Amino acid sequence: MEPHASSTTPTAWTRKHLLGLEDLTREEIVAILDTADSFAEISQRSRKKVPALQGRIVFNLFFENSTRTRTSFSLAAKRLSADTQDFTASSSSLSKGETFIDTARNIEAMGADLMVVRHSTPGAPHLLAQHVNCSIINAGDGAHEHPTQGLLDLMTIRRAKGKIEGLTVALVGDISHSRVARSNIWGLTKLGARVILCGPPTLVPKSLERLGCEVAYHLDEVLPHCDVVNVLRIQFERQAKALFPTVSEYSQLYGMTQQRVLKGKENLLVLAPGPINRGVELTPEVADGPNSAILDQVTNGLAVRMAVLYLLSGKMESKGAGGDSSAERDT
Amino acid sequence: MEPHASSTTPTAWTRKHLLGLEDLTREEIVAILDTADSFAEISQRSRKKVPALQGRIVFNLFFENSTRTRTSFSLAAKRLSADTQDFTASSSSLSKGETFIDTARNIEAMGADLMVVRHSTPGAPHLLAQHVNCSIINAGDGAHEHPTQGLLDLMTIRRAKGKIEGLTVALVGDISHSRVARSNIWGLTKLGARVILCGPPTLVPKSLERLGCEVAYHLDEVLPHCDVVNVLRIQFERQAKALFPTVSEYSQLYGMTQQRVLKGKENLLVLAPGPINRGVELTPEVADGPNSAILDQVTNGLAVRMAVLYLLSGKMESKGAGGDSSAERDT
Amino acid sequence: MEPHASSTTPTAWTRKHLLGLEDLTREEIVAILDTADSFAEISQRSRKKVPALQGRIVFNLFFENSTRTRTSFSLAAKRLSADTQDFTASSSSLSKGETFIDTARNIEAMGADLMVVRHSTPGAPHLLAQHVNCSIINAGDGAHEHPTQGLLDLMTIRRAKGKIEGLTVALVGDISHSRVARSNIWGLTKLGARVILCGPPTLVPKSLERLGCEVAYHLDEVLPHCDVVNVLRIQFERQAKALFPTVSEYSQLYGMTQQRVLKGKENLLVLAPGPINRGVELTPEVADGPNSAILDQVTNGLAVRMAVLYLLSGKMESKGAGGDSSAERDT
Repeated sequence: MEPHASSTTPTAWTRKHLLGLEDLTREEIVAILDTADSFAEISQRSRKKVPALQGRIVFNLFFENSTRTRTSFSLAAKRLSADTQDFTASSSSLSKGETFIDTARNIEAMGADLMVVRHSTPGAPHLLAQHVNCSIINAGDGAHEHPTQGLLDLMTIRRAKGKIEGLTVALVGDISHSRVARSNIWGLTKLGARVILCGPPTLVPKSLERLGCEVAYHLDEVLPHCDVVNVLRIQFERQAKALFPTVSEYSQLYGMTQQRVLKGKENLLVLAPGPINRGVELTPEVADGPNSAILDQVTNGLAVRMAVLYLLSGKMESKGAGGDSSAERDT
Repeated sequence: MEPHASSTTPTAWTRKHLLGLEDLTREEIVAILDTADSFAEISQRSRKKVPALQGRIVFNLFFENSTRTRTSFSLAAKRLSADTQDFTASSSSLSKGETFIDTARNIEAMGADLMVVRHSTPGAPHLLAQHVNCSIINAGDGAHEHPTQGLLDLMTIRRAKGKIEGLTVALVGDISHSRVARSNIWGLTKLGARVILCGPPTLVPKSLERLGCEVAYHLDEVLPHCDVVNVLRIQFERQAKALFPTVSEYSQLYGMTQQRVLKGKENLLVLAPGPINRGVELTPEVADGPNSAILDQVTNGLAVRMAVLYLLSGKMESKGAGGDSSAERDT
Repeated sequence: MEPHASSTTPTAWTRKHLLGLEDLTREEIVAILDTADSFAEISQRSRKKVPALQGRIVFNLFFENSTRTRTSFSLAAKRLSADTQDFTASSSSLSKGETFIDTARNIEAMGADLMVVRHSTPGAPHLLAQHVNCSIINAGDGAHEHPTQGLLDLMTIRRAKGKIEGLTVALVGDISHSRVARSNIWGLTKLGARVILCGPPTLVPKSLERLGCEVAYHLDEVLPHCDVVNVLRIQFERQAKALFPTVSEYSQLYGMTQQRVLKGKENLLVLAPGPINRGVELTPEVADGPNSAILDQVTNGLAVRMAVLYLLSGKMESKGAGGDSSAERDT
């Protein structure tokens, strides 16, 4: 049941938390992807559960709604034989940072080994990691990072293309407000891809070049260089409406159509983090067509989350429920 | 742990979905009831779980509220060792048929083997069955069907009376808007019962005779012929209020009282799908009296749902989580 | 895996329900605390589940919100290998007592072995115990009792101080409206502690002395006698605002500060049932300081709930799911 041993064997894993891809080395990212591939193969062969997290308690601590990501983490934890528990805090208790930490400390005192945290404030998972003993996975913190989404995008590209190094990947859409974009940028550049950020100037400021990417405003000029396009979800709620092109302008300039797919390199891979707005970021024809990897992303998301849970579990305290509250804190 | 082998042994089961009783043959219905009887006996003897669905993932996909039915399916799945996951979509995402299918495809990509679907639109589960590879159980689609409720009513009658063929069963109340009535009608007539639909003319149009039933407007005239009455819930939210008798008129004309129970055949069996409105469809005296099988219906609901899950599991893909998204679709 | 056998061995346990500490003998309370200590030790050594409730179904039936207590019960049940199911009734269906009982009977008919019940009406769990066959645990009924909170407070005191007999414990705050206070009073006095109720006269009427406690209005005069203070949560929603001192007056007169901690006996133990209002009932310095046992209370809550579930499980019907609805009722 052990994922395959390799040069990036799990025994080399030293981190207790997964807070973002910016923090990880190339080798650590590859270790996660290799482990995820192993879990994907195990899952393909058998529905038997992997006993790695037996008796462990994984809490979903979501301060923003997300049925999809929460469900994916729950299923991943269950396949590793963990118990899962949702803890949906009312948004009213979020106004004080103290309460947020007290909530997490209470959950830890109930015996949580790992918390999957989503929060609208960038850095919230990092703050928790300083105040509790259990492992923290960032499941999205404001517009900052969403590392497991970045990892599942990497996994999907690597499985489809056989590699990531040397590929040209365009991230299309609202880059400014996208934690998915940010995690993709860190992951892709660390693994040697060329990353082009493409969208209207209001949403893709030139300053993002400092992240090691190129910035472009005309998708049709960019596409001929692309092996992969990742069309981000238009997050109507996260941006200043006034600055934005209208939806129909946006979809005309940046929406992936079958015509545009044909402008890309051969076998252009089209990714899109769900839920998709059909007819906005991409047409139904593209979403359901042979270039689309949208459902593979969802499936790979499970394997990536299993991999992360598995690797972090090696660094969990071996304490029982409740543990020793005087144990030294890992920050 | 296998339910008893018989002429209607599970190996003869060929369906992948349970969409409605209208589709099923007499033999298929009997196969489910026999399997449910076996599970009822197993559950009576021991609390040990049946390992039939170990490693399988059953999703509850409820677009209408239903704590009761959802809970019953969850418990049935757990007793068969499946993992269960609720996925409660916000009603706002229902306006487009596309999104509904995309949601289901995403859930399938997460590794779902079976989806239990409740939706306000008749035919919604059938639509899903055409667009995903996993098994679909209809847990109520608008006023169309609610097959597991029909099956648990059949099971309750058969266990109480020893047979269904030749019995006279009155369905009382708002037949027009009732998916429970419709599933009862298909199941009962296929198994050879005489079915009388009884209620005010606004709720029991004469045209329903085309379904192979009799239509009657005076409960007191019908009762002397009845072995069973199934008093349907008055669904205040589903009918045109103007046409309706008042609640007190309704309960005077159609409410089951102890007096009316005595007008039926000996040992008249009284069924009522919950939650009941005490004092409307039936009096507390009847609900809690010796003729009532209301709680048996709930208990049998668990056994019926175990039986359906068990039989369909034999037709599930043997794929692992995520499976092969290019697999041919079963329509 | 059996908790240690002792003079208070679980085999001596005869109760089917846990409705309140007022009903229990000293010996029964000690039996629960001993069992809880055993579970705490087992959990410390290993994350392996205890198989005691395998195949059993524990329902959380919460008619008032309580993420914390509900989660703690769920985790306790899971560690004993039970299946858990939440059943959150809408408050609208509470207006009739009948419906409340019908709901519980339905849940029982689905195979529930034990219901954990929270309800705003004092006595609601007692009512259920008279109408269903399964075991009932009171998880808080109005201002009446919250026995597992009382037990976890006792456990925390006993583990910190080595005993309860002879200790002086002050309960500080709104005693009138507090089910936590009431369960503490019964438990502490039965185990031989001296209990002082301290707070503003509007919230601590002199008449409470009939419960075997002392009543005092000046915390600073009481503290020098105290081994333990349990600072209750100010429940703004439960009291007549007009009679109440303002929050700042309250915290000045009754809030635990580090200065006040030093007025107590050596190693004064500070308890507080969460969620705490930092700066109101106690200062952050006290909450996070060496005298605070707040997080130990949470951890011990899990062990206490495991102990109660374990002891009651010995008295559960050995029936399978659904059982025999004609079985005689235990009242």
